[in-house]
Amino acid sequence: MNAAPHPILDSIRAIAWSEGSLKLLDQRKLPDEVVWLSFDRCDAVAEAIRDMVVRGAPAIGITAAYGAVLAARDRIRASGKDWHRGFADDLDQLAAARPTAVNLGWAVARLRARAAKLATSEVEEALFAEAQAMHDEDITANRRMGELGAGLIQGPCGVLTHCNTGSLATGGFGTALGVIRTAYGQGCLSQVYADETRPWLQGARLTAWELVQDSIPVTLICDGAAAWLMRTGKVQWVVVGADRIAANGDAANKIGTYNLAIAARYHGVRFMVAAPTSTIDPATPDGGSIPLEERAGEEVTRLGGRSFAPEGVQAWNPVFDVTPAGLIDVIVTERGVVTAPSHKTIQAVLQSQSP
Amino acid sequence: MNAAPHPILDSIRAIAWSEGSLKLLDQRKLPDEVVWLSFDRCDAVAEAIRDMVVRGAPAIGITAAYGAVLAARDRIRASGKDWHRGFADDLDQLAAARPTAVNLGWAVARLRARAAKLATSEVEEALFAEAQAMHDEDITANRRMGELGAGLIQGPCGVLTHCNTGSLATGGFGTALGVIRTAYGQGCLSQVYADETRPWLQGARLTAWELVQDSIPVTLICDGAAAWLMRTGKVQWVVVGADRIAANGDAANKIGTYNLAIAARYHGVRFMVAAPTSTIDPATPDGGSIPLEERAGEEVTRLGGRSFAPEGVQAWNPVFDVTPAGLIDVIVTERGVVTAPSHKTIQAVLQSQSP
Repeated sequence: MNAAPHPILDSIRAIAWSEGSLKLLDQRKLPDEVVWLSFDRCDAVAEAIRDMVVRGAPAIGITAAYGAVLAARDRIRASGKDWHRGFADDLDQLAAARPTAVNLGWAVARLRARAAKLATSEVEEALFAEAQAMHDEDITANRRMGELGAGLIQGPCGVLTHCNTGSLATGGFGTALGVIRTAYGQGCLSQVYADETRPWLQGARLTAWELVQDSIPVTLICDGAAAWLMRTGKVQWVVVGADRIAANGDAANKIGTYNLAIAARYHGVRFMVAAPTSTIDPATPDGGSIPLEERAGEEVTRLGGRSFAPEGVQAWNPVFDVTPAGLIDVIVTERGVVTAPSHKTIQAVLQSQSP
Repeated sequence: MNAAPHPILDSIRAIAWSEGSLKLLDQRKLPDEVVWLSFDRCDAVAEAIRDMVVRGAPAIGITAAYGAVLAARDRIRASGKDWHRGFADDLDQLAAARPTAVNLGWAVARLRARAAKLATSEVEEALFAEAQAMHDEDITANRRMGELGAGLIQGPCGVLTHCNTGSLATGGFGTALGVIRTAYGQGCLSQVYADETRPWLQGARLTAWELVQDSIPVTLICDGAAAWLMRTGKVQWVVVGADRIAANGDAANKIGTYNLAIAARYHGVRFMVAAPTSTIDPATPDGGSIPLEERAGEEVTRLGGRSFAPEGVQAWNPVFDVTPAGLIDVIVTERGVVTAPSHKTIQAVLQSQSP
């Protein structure tokens, strides 16, 4: 079954720049409505990141880069050659919009460094070129991760994924979903299972939506059914993304990932993390040092504007958890595959050149 | 903290008989609305079990017992002394309403055996007395399990539970939630964490509602957050119910339970199943022989009348999973505690007398 290669369209892009504005596909409204929002100001971009108009570690990094372009333009218009201080404040605000994904800080630092060397007259154009380059590099990295990750998958097999790591979560194509797209295209993947991924339902709303558009067979499950699915023997791999990978290989990702890693190890199912090297933070020694966002309990008790729990009930809403390196079989980056992640193997991939 | 005992009200009852009719609290509408439905006919009772007006293994057993009373009354009214055949068909229909919980078949068999020995004139009254006795015995069993289970919990500690196993799922008081009620009443439990329990959200809708009414501190979590909660050290026990326990101690329970058992073992958190002996099925040798219900995928993709997934996406909706005996630390029944569940220890508790 599925031995023949399949064409992969991958036509979805959630971040675009046109007519001097940043356009974001509002991911809170998918799949019911396809709504594009337009941004001319940096503070509105920071708010969009905070409110999850855009989400996914690589995607919020790229969004912040375009936000920095808007910040520079505004600050130069308002203050001319004295644009630097306001611009620095804007970048701080962007970097602080969400705490866990290191790509956000990484992107902001890259734009900050680029801006430092520029004359006022060239800032806007140069930063825009930098943001575009970052966007293009991300798609290229995703394609490369797709090839490397798919190369590890013996088919035909079933894969379970969590949250959304596709075109919507990145510059395009996807990290874990890029691996899945590529593996399906090569005919070595027969069925994708997608955790619905409470509380935001990114699996049900976004991953299913992406896969349907690429005609890749997808079956949704409730997050609690994952271990039982593994028990049935229908999945040979769990493939997920990451929001920050510490220097020792511990990986923060959407809440529920740690659950999957434990169940995968118990069942002998292989566990792959696909993430670009921009997600690796050498300054974070281990998972215990990763700042983990917690959001309001109402995101658990309410859904689609309606409350399902009795009024006033408390809920704990951690957005991310940390999977220890010891539970991860491979980390796939655009620079190569890290097997048995550790401080040493992570360092090695960071020091290698992109192929 | 919580060293002093707390009064437990336990005022909720979801199954009642009045003025010759069975009354069921419609659990699909909780916690938004408290709606009682009235039943005069057995086929409507079978439909209510199938449609989950009432759920929870002990509760559907008791409901079926009252349904048998209605069946006998109707059949005698229609056919006089020839009531037996129609009655037998009605009981078959009741027993087939849902496949997994063995309490349903157990209750129907008990009423069938009782009816076999009766003269037509005494059937209705005698079956009603049998159903009431079964209802009372269930509450007594729950109280006893509460004492036995709470006796194992060293406090103050945190407990994680799954689905709803309380007054709503039983004749009253609850199995796992009965243990939790008792432990809290004795001051050895400081915090309950409740999985929201997708797809039906029995944890968010029902367990939270019950615990709020008893003023027991409860915090909801998404099912995917359970392993991460265990990692924080905030829970020392997972306490769950069961829908059928096989002769070797394997236990079928709400989907997600198996996930919890694996994560609990990984973290050294203790795992307790609380269920009356009517949930143990000596005729089912092991978990592989338990019939496991699967329901429509729409229960996953839709919530509160609204679809969250793209149209036409498939979903896999297993209602139950099986936790192997080896992952269960203790099974608490009204006849005693089974440590290290196995064919031998399960047989021993079945052969012992209620204290």
